[in-house]
Amino acid sequence: MKLLKTTIEKIKPIDPKWRQAAAERLDSLTKPPGSLGRLEEFAGRLVAIAGDPMPEITRKVIFTFAGDHGVIEEGVSVYPGEVTAQMVRNFLRGGAAINVLARHAGAKVVVVDMGVRHDFGKIKGLVSAKVVSGTGNFTRGPAMTRAEAIRSIEAGIRLAARFAKNDAKNGSGKSKSLFGTGDMGIGNTTPSSAIAAVLTGSEVARVTGRGTGISDEALGRKIEAIEKAIRVNAPDAGDPVDVLSKVGGAEIGGIAGLVLGAAANRVPVVIDGFISTAGALIAHALQPWTSDYMFASHKSVETGHRAMLERMGLVPILDLDLRLGEGTGAALAMGLITAGLKIYREMATFGEAGVSDEVLN
Amino acid sequence: MKLLKTTIEKIKPIDPKWRQAAAERLDSLTKPPGSLGRLEEFAGRLVAIAGDPMPEITRKVIFTFAGDHGVIEEGVSVYPGEVTAQMVRNFLRGGAAINVLARHAGAKVVVVDMGVRHDFGKIKGLVSAKVVSGTGNFTRGPAMTRAEAIRSIEAGIRLAARFAKNDAKNGSGKSKSLFGTGDMGIGNTTPSSAIAAVLTGSEVARVTGRGTGISDEALGRKIEAIEKAIRVNAPDAGDPVDVLSKVGGAEIGGIAGLVLGAAANRVPVVIDGFISTAGALIAHALQPWTSDYMFASHKSVETGHRAMLERMGLVPILDLDLRLGEGTGAALAMGLITAGLKIYREMATFGEAGVSDEVLN
Repeated sequence: MKLLKTTIEKIKPIDPKWRQAAAERLDSLTKPPGSLGRLEEFAGRLVAIAGDPMPEITRKVIFTFAGDHGVIEEGVSVYPGEVTAQMVRNFLRGGAAINVLARHAGAKVVVVDMGVRHDFGKIKGLVSAKVVSGTGNFTRGPAMTRAEAIRSIEAGIRLAARFAKNDAKNGSGKSKSLFGTGDMGIGNTTPSSAIAAVLTGSEVARVTGRGTGISDEALGRKIEAIEKAIRVNAPDAGDPVDVLSKVGGAEIGGIAGLVLGAAANRVPVVIDGFISTAGALIAHALQPWTSDYMFASHKSVETGHRAMLERMGLVPILDLDLRLGEGTGAALAMGLITAGLKIYREMATFGEAGVSDEVLN
Repeated sequence: MKLLKTTIEKIKPIDPKWRQAAAERLDSLTKPPGSLGRLEEFAGRLVAIAGDPMPEITRKVIFTFAGDHGVIEEGVSVYPGEVTAQMVRNFLRGGAAINVLARHAGAKVVVVDMGVRHDFGKIKGLVSAKVVSGTGNFTRGPAMTRAEAIRSIEAGIRLAARFAKNDAKNGSGKSKSLFGTGDMGIGNTTPSSAIAAVLTGSEVARVTGRGTGISDEALGRKIEAIEKAIRVNAPDAGDPVDVLSKVGGAEIGGIAGLVLGAAANRVPVVIDGFISTAGALIAHALQPWTSDYMFASHKSVETGHRAMLERMGLVPILDLDLRLGEGTGAALAMGLITAGLKIYREMATFGEAGVSDEVLN
């Protein structure tokens, strides 16, 4: 609890003066002002996050947090729970979508066991931060205890701090990393929708979708399960840790912690899709300034994503009908965010290039 | 004229059987079916374009065609005409946005002088295919002669064929390239809007925007200039070459030719923004099957872009408020298109990964 508290206290909003400084440089480059649209916005925000007129990104890391969910007993998912552990092994062998897209983006994948219902023993490449062995079925009681929820958040904070610190050893004392979030957990759109409903004050049916592709019948069961969970556990919307513990999940807590840790260490963090956004929303509810450090990678197919993004004031970068998770959207968006930074850093100015910036009308 | 005719005759539609074959493989990979949305669509189309169950892309080339426009006499642009030649030099020195974004995408930039009103002499790295030294002011007569328009298209066709052929020497006999289009030409949103109006049958005001950022007054002049050009020249909507010669431009012809040449050589081609789409629309009007080979990189801020994309049945990949041209949107989209292909080529199947594909509901 102490680490969570001190981390939240460490988070400060970005200073708008840096965005102004970035805008001046962007307008001196050989292009009509503003003509690179959101790429320019990305660059301006990276400058402000770093508090540095010429920031660099030399390392990209995607943290894929895995956990299982007791609520799948209610028949809310297409796939059996064993698939979570099987996919973790697939991540470690490099055969999953996130491995392919992270390689494409030049990003490292860090796979974290937050709450998989399986004992991996010693296994190379897996970060063990297991808080629970699968959450409880939240239609009958809380998914986790409050202590477990805090431990899940603090595990994410520690990972962010560890990677930001290693990074700062590069001499400048400043992080040159870009973090991304990801998730794996059969059934985890269900707790994510529950979090969306409680924290945005939306009706459950409005923020609950088909996940990996369930039938109408299963969708009905899923909505009922979430409504029951909220009735049975009465999560307190004013207490994000209470929401996470009662209707959330361990991997969602890890994501929330990573976002808090990124913001506390002034590292930009790319939020993947629906589940990651639920984790980010927990972080945002604990400290709204965290959204200054977030980039929303894409607009998920999943209903309810938009309500969460709007609550945090984030506009998604991509809209490619993705609904996979793992960090795949974050990996794709990283390429665009770093493109914005390269525009800022590498383009010639009008003066350097001998191009007229005279304006006729 | 002979080259244009034989090229058009060579273009065939893609065979849907390949998309079916691609879909089968995509559904065997360790992810819920369809969960990577448009990435899967990109992969399926690349398979069908190549006519190969396991296509590769080993080279990306962006062709940036430059030309000047007599119509700028009418006060339709923010920047003076000299900027076209200045920006060509900026491209050759590597300081422009397209250079930065092409490097980011791992793409080569080929800069082509189609009709710049400047004599570059011998200058390293510039492909000279000059058809005119700036077009005529099309409010008073045709922008180019019919012969010039055909020469501009054929220059693009030759470039596509040359790059596709070099490429085919890699042993497989098949192209492993991905082409992108780009443009540079002060004033060239004006002919592009004229082409959009004539070929989509839209009112001029509906497809005419602010280009690099003109005032309300200049926008009024621009719309008037286009309306006058259409009145004076009476381009024949049923004859795309007539439209290009009367209200188009030499770089737009080069783009049209590149698209035709790409389709004829079965090379996928990424269409940049508004000006490139006008060029692609000329190609599409000559042979509608060309759109099978096109990827629309992004939705431009420029009014009128959507009408042209819809006419060709293309859905833009990105929406980042870009309005620069040069090929910048194409460079950014290339990263997503090749990500789709890597998913298809590199992901593990359920069998390989030992992941259950049992479906519960």
